[in-house]
Amino acid sequence: MTASSSSSSSVPGVFISFEGIDGSGKSTQARHLHATLEAEGRATILTREPGGSPGAEEIRALVLEGAADRWSPETELLLFTAARRDHLERTIQPALAAGQVVICDRFADSTRMYQGLRGDDIRAQVDALHDLMIGQEPDVTVLIDIDPKAGLERALGRGAGEERFESFGLGLQERLRAGFLELAAAQTRFEVVSGAGSETVVAARVRKALKARGI
Amino acid sequence: MTASSSSSSSVPGVFISFEGIDGSGKSTQARHLHATLEAEGRATILTREPGGSPGAEEIRALVLEGAADRWSPETELLLFTAARRDHLERTIQPALAAGQVVICDRFADSTRMYQGLRGDDIRAQVDALHDLMIGQEPDVTVLIDIDPKAGLERALGRGAGEERFESFGLGLQERLRAGFLELAAAQTRFEVVSGAGSETVVAARVRKALKARGI
Repeated sequence: MTASSSSSSSVPGVFISFEGIDGSGKSTQARHLHATLEAEGRATILTREPGGSPGAEEIRALVLEGAADRWSPETELLLFTAARRDHLERTIQPALAAGQVVICDRFADSTRMYQGLRGDDIRAQVDALHDLMIGQEPDVTVLIDIDPKAGLERALGRGAGEERFESFGLGLQERLRAGFLELAAAQTRFEVVSGAGSETVVAARVRKALKARGI
Repeated sequence: MTASSSSSSSVPGVFISFEGIDGSGKSTQARHLHATLEAEGRATILTREPGGSPGAEEIRALVLEGAADRWSPETELLLFTAARRDHLERTIQPALAAGQVVICDRFADSTRMYQGLRGDDIRAQVDALHDLMIGQEPDVTVLIDIDPKAGLERALGRGAGEERFESFGLGLQERLRAGFLELAAAQTRFEVVSGAGSETVVAARVRKALKARGI
């Protein structure tokens, strides 16, 4: 065997997450990047949270179905963390071990923002729980940054998806954006990409940012 | 209103858990104590783990159904902790706040033993996760202590219940017993009661031990 025909497992995988406020276009951009990398010949999987593995999807259904006060913030946090652990073990880590690119629509940063918004105490619990039971961050997190008003209009116009989270309004979107930008400023794994413009224009920005990191 | 007619919420509740290896008779004794205290005129609820509240029972079903390797030890631990948090918030704490006696068949000590047996790393995670997300211990834990061989024969003869846990055999039962006794030696909340003899004989030992604590 020559070096060039060696198994893909010798190539290190790359873990890329997409984050952003509702209506930012992060899911569209995650799908777009998946198609682009596949077209470039990279073995790539597209996954999402909450969910992303059979067990995690069952936990997701348990969390998101039913009344908004069905679970306390702490119980919901534990359930999302259980789903993330399953997703990580059963989907993400095996793909990375096989040298694949893993593109994940939302990861732990979404928990930091959405659960963390419920108060400083639970935000501290979010971080401690992540360190204790997850302990893995993406190699790169693409934060699609958009004006909260534009994002909210886009999300509400879509009329589907996680309405529980999207029903909090503009004030929430503004706090989420500020929170995401604060996270991004503190960690080098973040690439903040403007979500203004067409899907293709934003996708070109994303691709360029990743190329600058050798991906 | 006179002092004697004040609401029961001024009386502090008491949280009693029952622990023990499979076949120790802990569930029988929990039921027996519930009936005894009710007969003595104490407002008492009997509950159990995993489960004990509608949400926790749903999580219990998700954990216990399916193949034994369906969840990793860490994911299972997170799911049991989510169930415990729900049970604590929705069943145990409201009853304690109303001045009731809460009798719980298994609580966090069972997690320490059964999940902790999977290795030292996960045992440390069990303790850290409890401190972070639960933080409450029973006022008294009654450990029904029994010879592992006798317990196993009783459990297998019953032919029902959590067979996943009971299928590990005598070696496991011996390790569990040693682990429970070690926990009990380290914490004053434990009452170790011999499970040898008839239900009535053991129940009298339990009642005497609690009376000595003013319950």
